[in-house]
Amino acid sequence: MDTKLTNAADLAAMMLERFGPRSVLTEPTDTLRYRRDWHGDVEGSAVAVLRPGDTEEASAMVRFCAEHGLAVVPQGGNTGLVLGALPTSARGHVVVSTERMNRIRGIDAADFSAVVEAGCVLAAIKDAAEAEDLFFPLSLGAEGSAQIGGNISTNAGGINVLRYGMTREMILGLEVVLADGTVWNGLSTLRKNNSGLDLKQLFIGAEGTLGLITAAAIRLVPKPSHVETAFLALADRNDVMALYALARRECCDLLSAFELVPPEGMTLAKEADPSLALPQIADAPAYALIDVAATGSLDLKPLVERFFELAMERGYVIDGVLAASQSQAADLWQIRDGMNEGQAKRGVHLRTDLSVPPSKVAAFIEEGMREMALRLPDCLPVAYGHVGDGNIHFNVLPPAGLPREERDAKLASAKKVLNAIVDRYQGGISAEHGIGRLKRDDFAARRSPVQQEILTGIKALLDPADLFNPGCQIASPRDGADVTVF
Amino acid sequence: MDTKLTNAADLAAMMLERFGPRSVLTEPTDTLRYRRDWHGDVEGSAVAVLRPGDTEEASAMVRFCAEHGLAVVPQGGNTGLVLGALPTSARGHVVVSTERMNRIRGIDAADFSAVVEAGCVLAAIKDAAEAEDLFFPLSLGAEGSAQIGGNISTNAGGINVLRYGMTREMILGLEVVLADGTVWNGLSTLRKNNSGLDLKQLFIGAEGTLGLITAAAIRLVPKPSHVETAFLALADRNDVMALYALARRECCDLLSAFELVPPEGMTLAKEADPSLALPQIADAPAYALIDVAATGSLDLKPLVERFFELAMERGYVIDGVLAASQSQAADLWQIRDGMNEGQAKRGVHLRTDLSVPPSKVAAFIEEGMREMALRLPDCLPVAYGHVGDGNIHFNVLPPAGLPREERDAKLASAKKVLNAIVDRYQGGISAEHGIGRLKRDDFAARRSPVQQEILTGIKALLDPADLFNPGCQIASPRDGADVTVF
Repeated sequence: MDTKLTNAADLAAMMLERFGPRSVLTEPTDTLRYRRDWHGDVEGSAVAVLRPGDTEEASAMVRFCAEHGLAVVPQGGNTGLVLGALPTSARGHVVVSTERMNRIRGIDAADFSAVVEAGCVLAAIKDAAEAEDLFFPLSLGAEGSAQIGGNISTNAGGINVLRYGMTREMILGLEVVLADGTVWNGLSTLRKNNSGLDLKQLFIGAEGTLGLITAAAIRLVPKPSHVETAFLALADRNDVMALYALARRECCDLLSAFELVPPEGMTLAKEADPSLALPQIADAPAYALIDVAATGSLDLKPLVERFFELAMERGYVIDGVLAASQSQAADLWQIRDGMNEGQAKRGVHLRTDLSVPPSKVAAFIEEGMREMALRLPDCLPVAYGHVGDGNIHFNVLPPAGLPREERDAKLASAKKVLNAIVDRYQGGISAEHGIGRLKRDDFAARRSPVQQEILTGIKALLDPADLFNPGCQIASPRDGADVTVF
Repeated sequence: MDTKLTNAADLAAMMLERFGPRSVLTEPTDTLRYRRDWHGDVEGSAVAVLRPGDTEEASAMVRFCAEHGLAVVPQGGNTGLVLGALPTSARGHVVVSTERMNRIRGIDAADFSAVVEAGCVLAAIKDAAEAEDLFFPLSLGAEGSAQIGGNISTNAGGINVLRYGMTREMILGLEVVLADGTVWNGLSTLRKNNSGLDLKQLFIGAEGTLGLITAAAIRLVPKPSHVETAFLALADRNDVMALYALARRECCDLLSAFELVPPEGMTLAKEADPSLALPQIADAPAYALIDVAATGSLDLKPLVERFFELAMERGYVIDGVLAASQSQAADLWQIRDGMNEGQAKRGVHLRTDLSVPPSKVAAFIEEGMREMALRLPDCLPVAYGHVGDGNIHFNVLPPAGLPREERDAKLASAKKVLNAIVDRYQGGISAEHGIGRLKRDDFAARRSPVQQEILTGIKALLDPADLFNPGCQIASPRDGADVTVF
């Protein structure tokens, strides 16, 4: 162990010498925020944090790590929820943070595209697009911190997926540093390019296990000039997908968000921000929060009103609020965002990111609720999320004041029950967060031998020495299972 | 050579014995239509044509071919334009046609999805979706013959890409027979599933070189209930992308097609069908054919009229026709479809499928036209296509009656000049048709060593014996360059 530590200190000194103090952090206090996960629950260790300023330096750093047997953990804004950017290896781990690579290399309005470096914060990209009257549709809670490289590596989802697709659909090209330090320049802004296999697809959703994404060409769309936001009270939670189908049809392809909010959502949001103005709306077993957005001179209001009328007529909806102003719309969305904070305030709880075929959403929630009531009657189940995509965050909050062990046992049991229901519906255990280290074992238990063989084959092909993010997504052949997390 | 032939005949007899006459064609007259390309220009040879009835039989056939050293050429409707499904190997080639695997396994309207077998004809899938008031957005000229397995293997484009994306974006899951006969069941209908690498992406656009696609889960959307079709005369071809940007913005995301039609298009369409009613419209250097489509109760007409007004005001457009009926809309689209037939009627010509960043479309066409006028003044250049996606079919028609060699020299020179311009704009030599065997060398000349290494690595990983479609997309390590085509 001593040798190892000395060696790590030596390597850190060598990196500092070679790349300079702006690019290399070695002090534990400096590296802490890169070694700790977003929730602050888990802390890893790292020989150093490297912060390349450009692609060339990133390539030199990867080469250095490869030569010295260090493992590289690519990291963006460190906002991931599955410990995918946590340095934990038995080998020396180096975090390579893209935060200094935050230039927007160019926006081409006529082309509806931009080329951005991996460290660009999502909100900064959205702002830069808006300045050109354009819109980058990836929208998620952490957008003020999340970096596009991380979004691409996790194939992030968010609230606009039903209209614009996942991050994958927004990526036109990538620039990636490979395991031998070579830079693959696939930074095309072409919309259509059927020239052989589409290599960028390999790196999207790979969670940094196959290479270090340094830049991306992204697709932009015209900026919606008007948005209608509605908050609807459902007669019956089971009608949620019928309401969704009606919204899709009546609002054409202009429906950009359709979120299910449970009644507890309002309580939780109010706990997070007591000053939040809740809408005057009937009590209901479920609510739908809907955005419809358009560009140009189209008048959206009659469209949304007609949809609301039909939803009332068919008995799906018993009451509803249509935001009269942008600030009222923001308040309605604050319910959705605030309920996350409210859950966090209640302490450790089970967070899930499940998906089922959209047609199975209502049945899945119903079954999950029934099972929770039966098996864990003292816990609070909160099921919500992007139901238009079949994506439910079915969270479970334990009662306050339980001893840690008892609490963890309850949450583990809840997870097992929910995953079993999801499996029965041929659903997914990670709809939009990725696998990381948190869900690696759950993922391993669910893949077929043939899938396993292809995954490990691709890893061996692109990263034969297991340099990149060992132990993330699949077990590391060299390091084994190197982190145990709840 | 005798041994080889005897061996082929023996193998054919063995397959006939094992799989039966419904599944195996061996007579040259029976196999001809599978061995000849869509245009009828090139004819290959095959030991047999296999027509599996289901996935199990397809797997057994692949296993048989692997055991006996035969190569497998997966084939759908054989409507490809780049010789991707042409059996030509120095080894014995077997065509595996999916045509008997044409069942729609299920449509789930609540789920906006369907599971279809690879041999389903595209038009049949579209019809089945319409019967459920749904729409499968992939739309292309050959849809009456093309099979979905082939569409997926080539990542087909078509006229609705700007709204709905390429085939890739419409695929939720795949079932694939791999090189050892194993079936990978990735037939998920989940919208969001970030569980490790998205393996289906490997097979989309692989042109049958990595496996045999036997079924797919596809994404459906609500069926547009009303469509407005406009045919607009442009003041200047260089304004085409400004007009496109205006259309995107004014018609929101309801713009589903935006095609550039050159004036020659009308002549050519009329040559194909002399009874075609051409619109009463001003002479112009270029025309735009536009579809805007919506579901629900939205009134599209004011939207399109407002767009037209603005386009006139800004001087992009000097005249226009808005289809007053479905049959008038069909006539307008007949110009677009008929101009292909008209070109075919004029005999052998250069067909291209180029793409540039959308912002470069006008400059690219301008330059191409100038070069053609300069170098090949007796040829007719016809540049048209899906300009919203930056995809131009820049075709070149030689004068009638040229000796074959002289004609071919002219077309080869035209291709070289156009490819050089495309290269300068960092464009693509195959936007939507794929590489196949026709563009293999042009593709090889344009890829970087690192891209080459990954491509051959993936091929070796998934198909170590080079069983699937050798010589398609990349040169076959066993067979070498096995076909020479113009």
